[in-house]
Amino acid sequence: MGKKNKQFVEKITAMEDDFAQWYTDVVKQAELVDYGQVRGTMIIKPYGFAIWENIRDELDRQIKATGHSNVAFPLFIPESLLQKEKDHVVGFAPEVAWVTHGGDEELAERIAVRPTSEVLFCDYYSKNIHSYRDLPMLYNQWANVVRWEKTTRPFLRSSEFHWQEGHTAHATDADAAAETDKMLGVYVDLVENYLAIPVIKGRKTDKEKFAGAKYTLTIESLMHDGKALQSGTSHHFGSGFAEAFDITYLDENGESQFVHQTSWGLSTRIMGALIMVHGDNRGLVIPPKIAPTQAMIVPIAQHKEGVLDKAYELRDQLKNLVRVDIDASDKMPGWKFNEYEMKGIPVRIEMGPKDIEKEQVVLVRRDTGEKEFVALSELETRLPALLEEIQSNLFNEALEHRNEKTSTAKNMDEFKQNLEEKGGFIKAMWCGDLACEEQIKEETTATSRCIPFEQEQVAETCVCCGKEAKELVIWAKAY
Amino acid sequence: MGKKNKQFVEKITAMEDDFAQWYTDVVKQAELVDYGQVRGTMIIKPYGFAIWENIRDELDRQIKATGHSNVAFPLFIPESLLQKEKDHVVGFAPEVAWVTHGGDEELAERIAVRPTSEVLFCDYYSKNIHSYRDLPMLYNQWANVVRWEKTTRPFLRSSEFHWQEGHTAHATDADAAAETDKMLGVYVDLVENYLAIPVIKGRKTDKEKFAGAKYTLTIESLMHDGKALQSGTSHHFGSGFAEAFDITYLDENGESQFVHQTSWGLSTRIMGALIMVHGDNRGLVIPPKIAPTQAMIVPIAQHKEGVLDKAYELRDQLKNLVRVDIDASDKMPGWKFNEYEMKGIPVRIEMGPKDIEKEQVVLVRRDTGEKEFVALSELETRLPALLEEIQSNLFNEALEHRNEKTSTAKNMDEFKQNLEEKGGFIKAMWCGDLACEEQIKEETTATSRCIPFEQEQVAETCVCCGKEAKELVIWAKAY
Ligand SMILES: [Zn+2]
Ligand SMILES: [Zn+2]
Repeated sequence: MGKKNKQFVEKITAMEDDFAQWYTDVVKQAELVDYGQVRGTMIIKPYGFAIWENIRDELDRQIKATGHSNVAFPLFIPESLLQKEKDHVVGFAPEVAWVTHGGDEELAERIAVRPTSEVLFCDYYSKNIHSYRDLPMLYNQWANVVRWEKTTRPFLRSSEFHWQEGHTAHATDADAAAETDKMLGVYVDLVENYLAIPVIKGRKTDKEKFAGAKYTLTIESLMHDGKALQSGTSHHFGSGFAEAFDITYLDENGESQFVHQTSWGLSTRIMGALIMVHGDNRGLVIPPKIAPTQAMIVPIAQHKEGVLDKAYELRDQLKNLVRVDIDASDKMPGWKFNEYEMKGIPVRIEMGPKDIEKEQVVLVRRDTGEKEFVALSELETRLPALLEEIQSNLFNEALEHRNEKTSTAKNMDEFKQNLEEKGGFIKAMWCGDLACEEQIKEETTATSRCIPFEQEQVAETCVCCGKEAKELVIWAKAY
Repeated sequence: MGKKNKQFVEKITAMEDDFAQWYTDVVKQAELVDYGQVRGTMIIKPYGFAIWENIRDELDRQIKATGHSNVAFPLFIPESLLQKEKDHVVGFAPEVAWVTHGGDEELAERIAVRPTSEVLFCDYYSKNIHSYRDLPMLYNQWANVVRWEKTTRPFLRSSEFHWQEGHTAHATDADAAAETDKMLGVYVDLVENYLAIPVIKGRKTDKEKFAGAKYTLTIESLMHDGKALQSGTSHHFGSGFAEAFDITYLDENGESQFVHQTSWGLSTRIMGALIMVHGDNRGLVIPPKIAPTQAMIVPIAQHKEGVLDKAYELRDQLKNLVRVDIDASDKMPGWKFNEYEMKGIPVRIEMGPKDIEKEQVVLVRRDTGEKEFVALSELETRLPALLEEIQSNLFNEALEHRNEKTSTAKNMDEFKQNLEEKGGFIKAMWCGDLACEEQIKEETTATSRCIPFEQEQVAETCVCCGKEAKELVIWAKAY
């Protein structure tokens, strides 16, 4: 092992040795987050936040393009309001952080720091929706929410996290169903085409659906260690919340009807997926479309006359074409190579005296490590093309990895053997009984990730009880 | 009074009759906010949030252009951390909302919902700043904060509000001072050139400065009712927080030094200024540069053949030039006129069959109510120019109003008389004694707004005690 690799071994644990430690090391060394003082809270540092901003801005654009308006609802929920919908409060109450005092004054009623905002939107809708003309009401907010978790990990499970939560109200069940589908589609586009993470689309089982929902749609992605991560969910509420909160409208015939609602959210958890799908033993690998810096110029022998001038000239030439930066600090090129590999910057541009003489640069891909010499006259064509190749390659690599780690099981022996040997997604038939779902979880710790939209019949009987199977379910150990 | 005016009188109170009620009516009727369920919290509705987003996006651009990085620090502060800097905790503790329980578990230590985040950044800086090479550290975050206020009003004083808070650490006092100045300059640019609100720049007295700061710079603006509103502040902390939190760095000689810090913030309060500086008895008036919709097309006699087609054609023609929208609903034109005047949309574009025949449109300015006929062939030139005229006019009108309401006072009789007769800013000399500042507040309810950078000597003696004056202070009743 050369000197360069050794440095990395010192910096971050190899993922084969200890995946959880590798994750923590990368998060820290790539300067994404730091720990807050209150248990389970996180400080998102400049580089981590710049990545999140790119994800957020693209998703925000798509949310607006699909007709939604941004709003800001309060952080605080009175306890009585949270209790209005029974399933919902049972689902969230154990994780609520409670405010009991304002200054020196003890409050008459406890206040929940929002774990999610359904009840606030429902209360608002009950007062602001009157007629079919008010529908659909299509709201979204970017917000912080708090869930008092026992065990926490940066991005994956933190006491406070950031997300967007869409909340919509519709005239009919079909309209709400169409919205639920549409917003899952937006998440698919974002996660597959921007984050380069392939997803499986499906419906959650009743056991795994959102507290209070009629059904929950989900996209599930597979991490490098073979565990699944739920990457975005879209919930159809039917009229359950509307009945609990008395949200009605007068239809075109003047008759009172309950509205039909949805909510959908994508959170900073997706940063965890980004790290665990694309990262390697040299650190992060960021897909070009969301990389804060797509190409980093590292001047070689920069003390030699003309090198830095030429490097800045190159930066100015490229800066309207790609997100380019330059490191002209007095640190050694080797240090810079390691640093920007750790940060997952898609392309490194090396330029030294010889390159200048030959009117060329060296492009080094972060994903494959491949080097290529490119004439300066070709660079404005080649660099954007290379970024697209990297974007595609990351998606294809992740898809290939997922396919390798996806297996089918016809009975529990196969199920356990697959899970043990390769982890990943297991396709297995299910009878639809909660008892089987619970037993599988108990025996294997794998959970049902979703009932995929793309159904196959891999067997005729339930993988657990052997009775007649109803549908295919994707199972996996999950974050 | 014609029919049209009467409608408005029904909708909103005249500002001459009851300014506070006018404000509340506008906020509600223009659909900016609604009240949250927990006392003093607000729901920022789509239109209000769209305006705030435009303000935020421009300020964010300027904050990044001046070299700052966005981050996200936690919502929660342990009580012990909040107590580390004495002045700071005394200033904020009475307004803190306290979390005491997580789920069913009572917490060992109370947690403050952040009223501001200095202590979190200080704690971070103490762990992450080591060398002069780490400086300056230039962080900003967009966040919600909570202050448990007794009396609240939408935007002006709410239990939870949204803002950006910049937090920076520097090697020297001079560097921190330059940063404090620079960021005040960014606020001046934003508020004067985008929000069209003229400001007075100055330094707060020690009594009015931020809890824990060495000094506070401020921009102060004047509302239509003659009361002042602090519109943005930039604090120089010196090394006070650094000493309390032990934030040191090794300088170039290897010696340990305390850092010098700043913080600066601008909040959703500025929305209150926007309303109260430009609004009138027909509702909001939004400066074009931050208006979500700059021009609203209202088709006239839209049931007639070709009118709607032509109106949509116009919208498509203009949409890459200005932020334009069209109301093609079946509501009456009169209703639409009132609605978009209430919302303060800078220009209304009317287009009916006769206009189409003459190949022209009617432009109606929101600020002056003036109408002009513009040939379609001229519109792409005239409309942007008109928006610029409106932007300038709003600033000039506000400046003129402020000048009318600014007076000087040489003694307390003059002070009281001016305050009673015209309100507004009063320029008066001050000896520098806290006692005089307190007495003026007690006798008049006016407070010192700032010691303006542009000093004049309007008298030789203190307006209150008659002793030798040290400096000019701007006084006013304030929000
Ligand atoms: Zn079964
Ligand atoms: Zn005096």
